[in-house]
Amino acid sequence: MSTELPHAAVIARDLIRCPSVTPSEGGALAFLEQLFGKAGFTVDRVTFQDKDTPDVENLFATIGSGKPHFVFAGHTDVVPAGNADDWRHGPFEGEVADGVLYGRGAVDMKGGIASFAAAALAFIEEKGADFGGAISFLITGDEEGPAVNGTVKLLEWAQKQGHVFDACIVGEPTNPNALGDAIKVGRRGSLSGIVTVNGVQGHAAYPHLADNPIPGLLRLMSALDAVEFDRGNERFEPSNLEIVTFDVANPAFNVIPARAQARFNIRFNDEWTLDSLKAKISATLEEAADEGLNWALEFRPDCSESFLTRDDTLIGALSDAVEASTGRRPELSTGGGTSDARFIKNYCPVVEFGLVGQTMHKVDECTKVVDLDDLAKIYRVFLDAYFAAKA
Amino acid sequence: MSTELPHAAVIARDLIRCPSVTPSEGGALAFLEQLFGKAGFTVDRVTFQDKDTPDVENLFATIGSGKPHFVFAGHTDVVPAGNADDWRHGPFEGEVADGVLYGRGAVDMKGGIASFAAAALAFIEEKGADFGGAISFLITGDEEGPAVNGTVKLLEWAQKQGHVFDACIVGEPTNPNALGDAIKVGRRGSLSGIVTVNGVQGHAAYPHLADNPIPGLLRLMSALDAVEFDRGNERFEPSNLEIVTFDVANPAFNVIPARAQARFNIRFNDEWTLDSLKAKISATLEEAADEGLNWALEFRPDCSESFLTRDDTLIGALSDAVEASTGRRPELSTGGGTSDARFIKNYCPVVEFGLVGQTMHKVDECTKVVDLDDLAKIYRVFLDAYFAAKA
Ligand SMILES: [Zn+2]
Ligand SMILES: [Zn+2]
Repeated sequence: MSTELPHAAVIARDLIRCPSVTPSEGGALAFLEQLFGKAGFTVDRVTFQDKDTPDVENLFATIGSGKPHFVFAGHTDVVPAGNADDWRHGPFEGEVADGVLYGRGAVDMKGGIASFAAAALAFIEEKGADFGGAISFLITGDEEGPAVNGTVKLLEWAQKQGHVFDACIVGEPTNPNALGDAIKVGRRGSLSGIVTVNGVQGHAAYPHLADNPIPGLLRLMSALDAVEFDRGNERFEPSNLEIVTFDVANPAFNVIPARAQARFNIRFNDEWTLDSLKAKISATLEEAADEGLNWALEFRPDCSESFLTRDDTLIGALSDAVEASTGRRPELSTGGGTSDARFIKNYCPVVEFGLVGQTMHKVDECTKVVDLDDLAKIYRVFLDAYFAAKA
Repeated sequence: MSTELPHAAVIARDLIRCPSVTPSEGGALAFLEQLFGKAGFTVDRVTFQDKDTPDVENLFATIGSGKPHFVFAGHTDVVPAGNADDWRHGPFEGEVADGVLYGRGAVDMKGGIASFAAAALAFIEEKGADFGGAISFLITGDEEGPAVNGTVKLLEWAQKQGHVFDACIVGEPTNPNALGDAIKVGRRGSLSGIVTVNGVQGHAAYPHLADNPIPGLLRLMSALDAVEFDRGNERFEPSNLEIVTFDVANPAFNVIPARAQARFNIRFNDEWTLDSLKAKISATLEEAADEGLNWALEFRPDCSESFLTRDDTLIGALSDAVEASTGRRPELSTGGGTSDARFIKNYCPVVEFGLVGQTMHKVDECTKVVDLDDLAKIYRVFLDAYFAAKA
């Protein structure tokens, strides 16, 4: 059966068989090193370390020279399988049944890497290494984990090696339902914060001797929750705030607690910057706080600005390739969560396009074999068009 | 120095020296058994037991016969001392310094028991056991603890023994600042409940795939908090609701939680019954809940109705006695927390009057020695007047 598999599916299957749960390399990078090396790529495997987080291996492979320099970015690490017995097919077996390839990472995102590898290898085989540009793979093993020893440091490393990228595709599973649904051309920003109200503990029967912090925090968080930050625009969904927790942890019905704390997260569009958003939130809380309320707002350091990629050649060539293969013009989306694109956008225009995401992070993660082959074809058509346009 | 102490202070000191932290008897009941026995009282020590709670000793002492039958209620158990090193005088030493008696239970309420014992012993010494009525002591060792094996069962036990009480004083420290401030003639009721909102867990970047329960619970609890139940009346303070906790316990900023829960406690006056109050709370939440909100309200079983004692002889004689000793007419108060009076009121009219409560449950709990003597005099004047009025 495996002899009938398209090249992308064979690569995906072999990658799935490497149990590369973050931070373990699991053989996946060794496999890619060999695959790219045989095809003439220069391959570097680089390990990064930092305090309080495991060392992580990464891989950089490059072929060709000159401009434009296109880079494909992806991660071979996967989230844990959970209870392997819950899977119809072993999470690291790479089994194919009824035209579907099963396994952890099938769509997120060993499948995406496999399709691009198949496309790039076919491109190089046809055009040769001196095709008038460069193609690189930026493959990290730390995307699903702390993301400290992965893409951020690999980008810095590549820059120090003299690599200047002109465009990037990240192979994350961007399609909600079917291959060709959506290219992600940007991301909303993310900002988190903690609101604390301090009161005075006391007995519930003697409220005048205490100061209950809960009503004050109810007011503050209700005010935050009521803000309509914007209505979105043609590029982005509306900005959205979620109160993710609200905690007091007082076990006694007859005790007025001393402190209440809530946390929120905002996914915001390009109507806002981190600065303007922080100012809006502070002002909202200040207005809602009663005189004398003892409250504090702390923004978390792990935040990110929104971004929108506006590279007509990159987006046009990819959209055309998708339409040519699927018959549908993909939506240019900015929804959903963050990815390593938020780091790459500081180096070059970046978009995301990969497989269908429905089963990502779930039991029985899988992809249609035909999707792997179709995605490889899309990537191949894109490479032809991109380098032709830039030539 | 101890030779100069008034009788009430000597008894209080000796009781403090018994380390009777709930549920331990600590020698306090043995001491009272001897004290009352010598004075001619019939004394019973009865131990009660129940599931999931320690066995607790209690004491019942009675003298005289016929009507009226007056009962003094109190507890010899005390809350823990905390760190004994924080105390200026050892919590179980019963030291007197500058006219102040120090120790755990000094005001809550070994001091109150001591003052009434001194008053009753002097009364019996003067009038004899056949004074034309009965005086009893209902002393529990389970007031500060679960209150399961204490007053409730001791009252049932006494009833089975044929005792019918006509009036009761509980010796809790009712005075906020100075002896004579206030007699407690009733208590607000207490009702607790839990409000739960269930949503659907999800990723903070994909709110349309989740259902955050926090905004719904914010609305419900804000609505509850905004209710003005009443403005109080000449007998009672306004009813008051406190939200005592609000919990989600979601550690992740990028996760929308599945459930949020809040708890409240209401101290309510005689404008409400438990039934009318429950209906008001249910209606308030129902009105505040958005269509489709998945919420639930659960009332806790440990609740109590408000009560107001209206016995002119009891309250009049006690108020007169206070005024005669302190020069001030005591306020008839219904504020504050619950006490064993909530159980006794089902058997006979009950009021509470004792020492000054400022140091109760605190480090360096203490009472002026003169207050112990003055309180004994007030109780003595009360006994004379009460039995004279009922004769
Ligand atoms: Zn991924
Ligand atoms: Zn007490």
